[in-house]
Amino acid sequence: MASLVELIAAKRDGRELASEDIHRLIQSYTGGELADYQMSAFLMAAFLRGMSDAETVALTEAMLRSGTVVDLSDVRGVKVDKHSTGGVGDKCSISLVPIVAACGVPVPMVSGRGLGHTGGTLDKLEAIPGFRVDLDIPRFAAIVREVGGCMIGQTAEIAPADKRIYALRDVTATVESVPLIVASILSKKLAEGIDALVLDVKVGQGAFMKSLDDARRLATALVRVGTRAGKKVVALLTRMDAPLGRTIGNALETREAIDMLFGRAPDDYTQCTKALAVEMLKLGGRATTDAHAMTLIDEALRSGKAVEVMERMVEAQGGDPKVVKDTSRLPMAPAIVTLHAPIAGWIEGIHAFEMGICAGLLGAGRTRADQAVDPAVGIVLEAHVGDRVEAGAPIAQVHARAASDVEPLRERMLAAFRMGERKPELAPLVIDRIEA
Amino acid sequence: MASLVELIAAKRDGRELASEDIHRLIQSYTGGELADYQMSAFLMAAFLRGMSDAETVALTEAMLRSGTVVDLSDVRGVKVDKHSTGGVGDKCSISLVPIVAACGVPVPMVSGRGLGHTGGTLDKLEAIPGFRVDLDIPRFAAIVREVGGCMIGQTAEIAPADKRIYALRDVTATVESVPLIVASILSKKLAEGIDALVLDVKVGQGAFMKSLDDARRLATALVRVGTRAGKKVVALLTRMDAPLGRTIGNALETREAIDMLFGRAPDDYTQCTKALAVEMLKLGGRATTDAHAMTLIDEALRSGKAVEVMERMVEAQGGDPKVVKDTSRLPMAPAIVTLHAPIAGWIEGIHAFEMGICAGLLGAGRTRADQAVDPAVGIVLEAHVGDRVEAGAPIAQVHARAASDVEPLRERMLAAFRMGERKPELAPLVIDRIEA
Repeated sequence: MASLVELIAAKRDGRELASEDIHRLIQSYTGGELADYQMSAFLMAAFLRGMSDAETVALTEAMLRSGTVVDLSDVRGVKVDKHSTGGVGDKCSISLVPIVAACGVPVPMVSGRGLGHTGGTLDKLEAIPGFRVDLDIPRFAAIVREVGGCMIGQTAEIAPADKRIYALRDVTATVESVPLIVASILSKKLAEGIDALVLDVKVGQGAFMKSLDDARRLATALVRVGTRAGKKVVALLTRMDAPLGRTIGNALETREAIDMLFGRAPDDYTQCTKALAVEMLKLGGRATTDAHAMTLIDEALRSGKAVEVMERMVEAQGGDPKVVKDTSRLPMAPAIVTLHAPIAGWIEGIHAFEMGICAGLLGAGRTRADQAVDPAVGIVLEAHVGDRVEAGAPIAQVHARAASDVEPLRERMLAAFRMGERKPELAPLVIDRIEA
Repeated sequence: MASLVELIAAKRDGRELASEDIHRLIQSYTGGELADYQMSAFLMAAFLRGMSDAETVALTEAMLRSGTVVDLSDVRGVKVDKHSTGGVGDKCSISLVPIVAACGVPVPMVSGRGLGHTGGTLDKLEAIPGFRVDLDIPRFAAIVREVGGCMIGQTAEIAPADKRIYALRDVTATVESVPLIVASILSKKLAEGIDALVLDVKVGQGAFMKSLDDARRLATALVRVGTRAGKKVVALLTRMDAPLGRTIGNALETREAIDMLFGRAPDDYTQCTKALAVEMLKLGGRATTDAHAMTLIDEALRSGKAVEVMERMVEAQGGDPKVVKDTSRLPMAPAIVTLHAPIAGWIEGIHAFEMGICAGLLGAGRTRADQAVDPAVGIVLEAHVGDRVEAGAPIAQVHARAASDVEPLRERMLAAFRMGERKPELAPLVIDRIEA
């Protein structure tokens, strides 16, 4: 049997490792036999030499098996989750879970927190007074069973090897590797006890993947590997150049997500959520065509059933359910500063990355995983891409802890608006759909 | 200023790092700011992406400056050392230091221990009763000054960064990288306070570099980088297919090295030592031609001056100087088992790697750095490559702790002798000479 160092050497030399070798590496790592410095050498070798789909499946399964796999076998139906690679203003999960659950597809969702310019679903949900994302697995499973959906954070039991490896990648320049990203995403998602997964792979300057080629490579790898791991997987490539919707910031985004359940949300965000919901309903066996799925979604919204699921989920997770019908119960920032258009013109673009950074600097985000976020602060766009504005018209409301927090960021936020002289053509939000 | 993680990423992406970046990485590592797991990711990236000569010079100097550089400025003359990449039966250093010192060139030598199939100079010297290789730097410098040569092990003060990095490379599959090997060798050697260095790069199955191409690549890199670091450097490529000389094992090799000082050593070993001594005398400014150097060497041997230096060095390092004129004072193994030629024929080859492994298994070597070696055990070749033997003639004497230790290795040792029907042509020992 090859030594662990020989396995690192094999990957270094570009050889394909057998599935049992990858399982042994991960087991040795979690068991303490393989040190962090050996794992990081392996990760750098994998980064530079790549990994085959078979290797990536093995890595996914090895990380998955390093912890508990949630048993949802007593929940009827095809369990479907969604994962987004992250963007600015991306609050789709929060409206998606109640909509899809209201249509009869159970959604067990383990989400993440914001980092850098991106927000995180958990931070947004925690803006709801009392809402808890740190439930244990039995409680998580019970809420999925009873309510149809539940949204928690990665617990210590879920894919602990991924948690350690992710932390190591972050400090060893081995983050941006397609197979390592795929295994990290899928190991956590597969640990939820799901049968199917819809992936929202964001593309653009506000996304992790800046180029369409890179995003497509990641999306196809996720679909291929997830399918090989025995799950039904579909990916949508969606645009992330401008912030999604009109809000950036935790409570602001939760409010907008709730508004969507009442049919009061911006088109781009509504469109993105519904496109993902359509895929989830099809994978969940509730609809065979897009049109059929869309009818179910519209009915869940119109009937108030999605709102009702949202209320029940909030309550089950310890939150104040009255927030759903009265979003003024969400935290509000003490200072609101209006930004005005410096010139007249058409808004050709709003730089999502820059807006994400500015919202983070206001206190909505974090640059290190151990920092706390302010639920109330953020940015509300008063005008969006494709809108015509006059000079001096309000284009954004900045929600801050103090008006003085806004000043250092004013120019930067204004510069994020790209103005032009002609009405821009709006590119479609969903760029492509990838299935096995 | 780039973060440390960005420096790892730059090497990962194949970019050339500035000299100050490499110095910063090493300083951060020794200072504790850069963790082992980050250094190992950097080493794997350097392994796979390579390093330019400028980067390798910077790495050499950064590791060198992590510790003390011996100050030999008060020792007259050009200080010259030799480094061998390691082989089986390679005891050249032990005869080389007294010969070259006797010719008036000071030799400050920091050597290593054996590992795997190779022996180490320190282990061989320690076979001399009382001989100490763990002298501190002031004592080392004093002996070089007074005797003309001194041979010690790497102290904690010499290139500590190299020591830590080497240990890390050993367990992260990042050993066999030319720039990393070059920086490791040169940082230690340059820390000795030398002006010039002769490299013996061994080639063949008994060597670290199995192919001539690899050995030449390493030798030219060593010469280029050493020259850029301001030293006079010459490399010889020498053959390491069969064991060098007739002995493998610590006391046995020390005895053979002392025998050489009396003109009683096998041709191949004598030839290798003299070829290296010629280069050292030329770099040391004692001779301008090979013939002149050879005259000086032969005179140092004939006159007994090399023997005298050896005695003084052994005494200065705490050893029993009587060993030099009476090698029976060296430790002797309790059991000596003779191996006989199974068939008649010409010896076409003796597999150095296999013989090195067998000597190690008898107790002469180690597989882990923390193991002790037995000074007395080893193998004496009674017949060598190019000799004709009859069936049943003695071909080796195995020195063991017990005759029963020999039995499990008997077939393996016999199989290391490749027999043929025709007298083989002996390939020249020195394959090439490389200078700046």
